[in-house]
Amino acid sequence: MSFAFRVTHANGRARRGQLSTPHGDIETPAFMPVGTQGAVKGITHRDLEAVGAQVLLSNTYHLYLRPGDDLIARRGGLHRFIGWTKPILTDSGGYQVFSLAARRTIDEEGAHFRSHLDGSAHTLTPEKATDIQAQLGSDMAMVLDECLAHPAEPAAARASMARTLRWACRARDRFLALRDGLVPGVASTNPGQAQFGIVQGGVFPELREESARQTVDIGFEGYAIGGLSVGEPNEVMYDMVARTTPCLPEDRPRYLMGAGTPEDLVEAVARGVDMFDCVLPTRNARNGQLFTSEGRINIKNVRYAEDDRPLDPACQCYTCRTCSRAYLRHLFAVGEINASTLNTLHNLTFYLDTLRRIRDAIAFGRFESFRLAFRQSLSRQPLDS
Amino acid sequence: MSFAFRVTHANGRARRGQLSTPHGDIETPAFMPVGTQGAVKGITHRDLEAVGAQVLLSNTYHLYLRPGDDLIARRGGLHRFIGWTKPILTDSGGYQVFSLAARRTIDEEGAHFRSHLDGSAHTLTPEKATDIQAQLGSDMAMVLDECLAHPAEPAAARASMARTLRWACRARDRFLALRDGLVPGVASTNPGQAQFGIVQGGVFPELREESARQTVDIGFEGYAIGGLSVGEPNEVMYDMVARTTPCLPEDRPRYLMGAGTPEDLVEAVARGVDMFDCVLPTRNARNGQLFTSEGRINIKNVRYAEDDRPLDPACQCYTCRTCSRAYLRHLFAVGEINASTLNTLHNLTFYLDTLRRIRDAIAFGRFESFRLAFRQSLSRQPLDS
Repeated sequence: MSFAFRVTHANGRARRGQLSTPHGDIETPAFMPVGTQGAVKGITHRDLEAVGAQVLLSNTYHLYLRPGDDLIARRGGLHRFIGWTKPILTDSGGYQVFSLAARRTIDEEGAHFRSHLDGSAHTLTPEKATDIQAQLGSDMAMVLDECLAHPAEPAAARASMARTLRWACRARDRFLALRDGLVPGVASTNPGQAQFGIVQGGVFPELREESARQTVDIGFEGYAIGGLSVGEPNEVMYDMVARTTPCLPEDRPRYLMGAGTPEDLVEAVARGVDMFDCVLPTRNARNGQLFTSEGRINIKNVRYAEDDRPLDPACQCYTCRTCSRAYLRHLFAVGEINASTLNTLHNLTFYLDTLRRIRDAIAFGRFESFRLAFRQSLSRQPLDS
Repeated sequence: MSFAFRVTHANGRARRGQLSTPHGDIETPAFMPVGTQGAVKGITHRDLEAVGAQVLLSNTYHLYLRPGDDLIARRGGLHRFIGWTKPILTDSGGYQVFSLAARRTIDEEGAHFRSHLDGSAHTLTPEKATDIQAQLGSDMAMVLDECLAHPAEPAAARASMARTLRWACRARDRFLALRDGLVPGVASTNPGQAQFGIVQGGVFPELREESARQTVDIGFEGYAIGGLSVGEPNEVMYDMVARTTPCLPEDRPRYLMGAGTPEDLVEAVARGVDMFDCVLPTRNARNGQLFTSEGRINIKNVRYAEDDRPLDPACQCYTCRTCSRAYLRHLFAVGEINASTLNTLHNLTFYLDTLRRIRDAIAFGRFESFRLAFRQSLSRQPLDS
């Protein structure tokens, strides 16, 4: 099975579609839970499937360092190594190099850095990022892009965007060479892998449009919008998305990287985005920050110590079916691992249910009323402050 | 439903039986996973039931300190608070006071100690331990006993045994008073709760026999053997068990506290024990120490880095069905919570399957051949050293 995408329903600029990959189909708009090191922290693959995850995102930087892409390739690729049978998207590793690695320097060749684990020296080039992901055998691979800190001056944003485009050309050339078996020493473990280009350009609409057009000119199976959700105001992010998606082909999936809150997802879908990933539901869960239809809950709060209600009466997840807020607060307060598991199950259910409701709304032609209701709902308000 | 026990099959001194509690039946011999703070670390109740747990052990000391037995009683008891619908046994809190608490002093009244959490001062008496467990509403409560460090001189062991007997009388009186509603201020949340006496006496057979006879004279729904599995040689533990069980009534359950390895369980069953609890399968799991039918595995070992086999080819647990040793080693090496979950699922399955095989062997009258085969099996040997 190879990669394909088709829009099945359009409703304004919102699209519902189906993405086919070598490891099965994904209904879009889709949210991809983050399994940094080959596992979503705190829950098993079984539970991840049960809450409705269709696709897993995994981080190339982490897997490259441990256990190494060579080892994973010898195991037959990431799917076989971790025992996940559904689609996987891998990032390029660039974002972690920029945010996590030590003593990094960037030049035209790529990113030079030292491992945050042992200080060992590494270089990540567009070609290397493509090779690693070929060895991991994800269904969707990302090109290496330059991640600019926000805020950036227009000149810096333009230079960075231009470099990202040059890197994208190199990454695409490498991807096609790998597909044709022309790169000795790299064991591609997924012949049906697709590659996504990434639109950059900071918060400057003209740069975004230029980046989108030129990335499309290179030609990829899908297109991502990168460099947002990095501290800029929400409205700026929404505006950049709105300016970018019209420059992308209708028949290719659009992926907004690293966003965001549930509200961000709804707003981005309204502007034509199909795919999302974010650590927010899983990281917040481990910190006791929970999303509910009635508002956000900080389960640490003493007001929940004797609260026998479920986290969210509107939620059907295992946590809400079987645990009271009082029990969840206790588990969090005493530091039980189970708090992470139960909270993660709930937050991911909230996200994945929201995406399911978005898909249904688009299919029934009522996305705008869903969006309005969602915006007016209490879910974005803190329930306990 | 009230408490009852009947032996359904006898095979030598080994017994198979059925224990009925207000929260359902338990097939014995049974192993009770330890859920210290109201949860077995790393796995959900759902997974705990799926691996075959019939009964959960929870620790009174921990629950008394956090979130407090008053709070749990206001929630309707421990079952409702934690959402576990099957039987629960609670210990008296004594063992943790002796092993964990700070600045403890013991006198005839009870144990005076400071919390290991915040240094607050507390006193645990036989009456208080009974009251707390009444509020928790476990199906089986334990009397407070004095836990003597091993090795102990005969005189010290005798004095301690005698005190444990006096405490057992007081605990039983309190238990009966609570049952009759004669203790104001204590909210018993489980009217069908049973109480177990505890046999002490160190490593001295005469003391063990005397303790057993006098504890039986007080009269409890079940009897535990305490003060073993605390550092004495295995053979001494087996011998103490063998000397104690003949002094206990045939028609009451016998519980060997805190034991042990899978081999210990088989040997204790051969000597007439019906119930067990131990942190070994769960704690070892979190430390990467795994039980398999082919030998013990330390999953940290680099030899497993590229080992695509399941932990135990004879095991049907989720971990063995879906994960390779290589993936489990990776998860452990990078410190993922999921390593604890997957390892705990496996180790508990190994224990609970062993108990199931023991019960089957007794029912079919072939326990001795099972025991011999188990003793000769490789499971006790390290596979990787």
